[in-house]
Amino acid sequence: MADFEIGVVLTQLFVLFFLAKVSAIIVKRFGIQGLVGEILAGILVANLVVGDWSLMHFLGLENLAYEHVIMVLAELGVIFLLFTVGLETKFEDIISVGKPAVYVAVIGVILPFVLGFALIMALHDMYMEALFIGAAMVATSVGFTAKVIQEMRLFHAIESKIIIAAAVIDDILGMIILGVVVGIANADSTGGGIDIVSILEIAAVAVFFVLAVIFVGVVGIPKAHKRRTARLTCDTSLKRSDHFQISPFALALIVCLGLSALADIMGLAAIIGAFLAGMLFTQFADVCSDLEERFTSVNDFLLPFFFIHVGLMVNLDSFLDVELLLLGAAIILLAVVTKYVAGIIGVRLGSPKLGKESGAIVGIGMVPRGEVGITVAYIGLTAAVVAQEMYALVVFMSIVTALIAPPWMAKVFRQKYGD
Amino acid sequence: MADFEIGVVLTQLFVLFFLAKVSAIIVKRFGIQGLVGEILAGILVANLVVGDWSLMHFLGLENLAYEHVIMVLAELGVIFLLFTVGLETKFEDIISVGKPAVYVAVIGVILPFVLGFALIMALHDMYMEALFIGAAMVATSVGFTAKVIQEMRLFHAIESKIIIAAAVIDDILGMIILGVVVGIANADSTGGGIDIVSILEIAAVAVFFVLAVIFVGVVGIPKAHKRRTARLTCDTSLKRSDHFQISPFALALIVCLGLSALADIMGLAAIIGAFLAGMLFTQFADVCSDLEERFTSVNDFLLPFFFIHVGLMVNLDSFLDVELLLLGAAIILLAVVTKYVAGIIGVRLGSPKLGKESGAIVGIGMVPRGEVGITVAYIGLTAAVVAQEMYALVVFMSIVTALIAPPWMAKVFRQKYGD
Repeated sequence: MADFEIGVVLTQLFVLFFLAKVSAIIVKRFGIQGLVGEILAGILVANLVVGDWSLMHFLGLENLAYEHVIMVLAELGVIFLLFTVGLETKFEDIISVGKPAVYVAVIGVILPFVLGFALIMALHDMYMEALFIGAAMVATSVGFTAKVIQEMRLFHAIESKIIIAAAVIDDILGMIILGVVVGIANADSTGGGIDIVSILEIAAVAVFFVLAVIFVGVVGIPKAHKRRTARLTCDTSLKRSDHFQISPFALALIVCLGLSALADIMGLAAIIGAFLAGMLFTQFADVCSDLEERFTSVNDFLLPFFFIHVGLMVNLDSFLDVELLLLGAAIILLAVVTKYVAGIIGVRLGSPKLGKESGAIVGIGMVPRGEVGITVAYIGLTAAVVAQEMYALVVFMSIVTALIAPPWMAKVFRQKYGD
Repeated sequence: MADFEIGVVLTQLFVLFFLAKVSAIIVKRFGIQGLVGEILAGILVANLVVGDWSLMHFLGLENLAYEHVIMVLAELGVIFLLFTVGLETKFEDIISVGKPAVYVAVIGVILPFVLGFALIMALHDMYMEALFIGAAMVATSVGFTAKVIQEMRLFHAIESKIIIAAAVIDDILGMIILGVVVGIANADSTGGGIDIVSILEIAAVAVFFVLAVIFVGVVGIPKAHKRRTARLTCDTSLKRSDHFQISPFALALIVCLGLSALADIMGLAAIIGAFLAGMLFTQFADVCSDLEERFTSVNDFLLPFFFIHVGLMVNLDSFLDVELLLLGAAIILLAVVTKYVAGIIGVRLGSPKLGKESGAIVGIGMVPRGEVGITVAYIGLTAAVVAQEMYALVVFMSIVTALIAPPWMAKVFRQKYGD
């Protein structure tokens, strides 16, 4: 216990939460989403150095044991966020936007991967590094977009449904690409071949997992629903009649944590599991209308740590070099344009009836890379294939895309749906 | 990141939360509070061993990095619980029960310390160990009692107020005793003297902290209240008019985390700070009536980890020895009787108008030692003053008192206030 003091954790949580909220209030004055302020607060905390004094060191956040705690709170925050998005999404909705979502996801994976790979190859001619950076540019982090959708109450907009469905497919494709890239890296260092069969097997299991949950949601739940409705109740007080029951909120937490863990074990993002779990509970939303409210309360506490934690990963020191800044700008431009174009083309091919405006909204919604891009680059860094400065660039790209997409998306959403 | 997998954490949280809830449902069938089931689930997880296979090892909970995460969730849970208790408590209430609370606390500190010390001295004749075990028998963990009060909605019962106020004083006294005991241990090993002045200084600062917050609550807040009321709103949707504001819930979280951290830094329990923070917000309860509901939602997720975490500390292996079991029974009896008697005598001396029934309720409410007793004994263990088996005994005592008090308290409460 000596090297892990609860008082230190509480101080960290207090300072981070306080700065996140103050920063959110400041950016809101400029009409920008609070989450942008929370990310900026994280960047500030990570980079505030006065002489020998650093805020990170002062807070003890350089100690991994404490950093892990913030990371878990962050992950739980984004998990519960995606659960609430799932709560507002019917399985039929996802199936109905299947076609445009597949187009958006596939084009949005191929374009950034191929062009990212080509850019790094043209400049550095190191194909392993180029592969990892291409892979890092693929992965959409849907948390940032989801928060905007939630704040604007636009769950039922067709664009929101396409974005969420495309993000699920994007994650599966990203997982396959990462599997292949890591396989090539291992084959490269050991001199063996790539086990493409086992990668596809893992991917098949992940697809099966997603389809199985959707199947349960479409077929299983409606049947069980009728029988259970009478037994489930929102009341959490200690009435005698409640003794045999579990509250829907506790049940939702169990299913949400379970499917998130399962998704992670399958190699998918945990938030995909949380989103699917949320969809399983849409049926109960009418029985227990406060489920979303309760998750939102938990998230008002946890989610700021997600945004601040993403900001904490940025080290501004890495960008004192002009050449690196230029390369960073090029990568960011590529990251934004490829997803934007994928949105426009994907929606046109999949849902020709929808206008270009919808394609733009979807494209912008897929722009944020956030912690997913950082994680992919980090795997390359620890495999000693991605250089430290290239890793810093990917972090930069991941953060900038996460910072610009929310206000941009809110703007185009407002243009279409009004305030 | 390699040695700390988010998927492992999610799996642990899923399994622990699931078992806690199932266990709570089972004990509720017997009319026992769910928290007892949650503690038992923790004990089960910690001790489920089949041959070479252990559940703790299987879940990865033996790894300290993961254990720390559970510990933080646990601490946040009990912090937010005490905040909600504070929300229901007016400063005037606490001041009005000051006299009986002081009697209950002082007698409830002296009796277990002196008799605990005497028992261990009589049996083992090791005075340092006896001092630590006496100190461990002093500290009431008010979380268990608070949960019962919250579930039964008996915040406004006079006994509840006395228990909470006495727990605050108990914590300050316990801190002084622990300071003195640790001082003696250090003096013992280094051959120096005890710096009783600096211990009293630290205690004085802690008392000043508590009184200062109470002063702010009684004098400062009502004034600020009138001016602020118009600006605070419960609405968290993204209306333009909200852009300059912070939600009361976020503000409450900031103050709660801040005062909890401060209390811990002062050497008090963090929950004392959380309780004081809650009292600061009682004034706003009418403006924003959903504050308690929101904290309760957060707690429905976090608090089970507090109870399960306490259970996780128990190692049943230590109790295969008959002699040790007998000693354990004696310590538990002493721990229960001393607090019970302190409640009866303290209430009689402080509030002669209240009946013996009230004294019994208060005494029972002070019985749980929980994680506080364990922490004190752990300090003695790491100082190599308390033997491993004596540490196990204190853990046993702390858990048993936490297990028996809630149903007992609920029973006497029901006898007085009905169902």
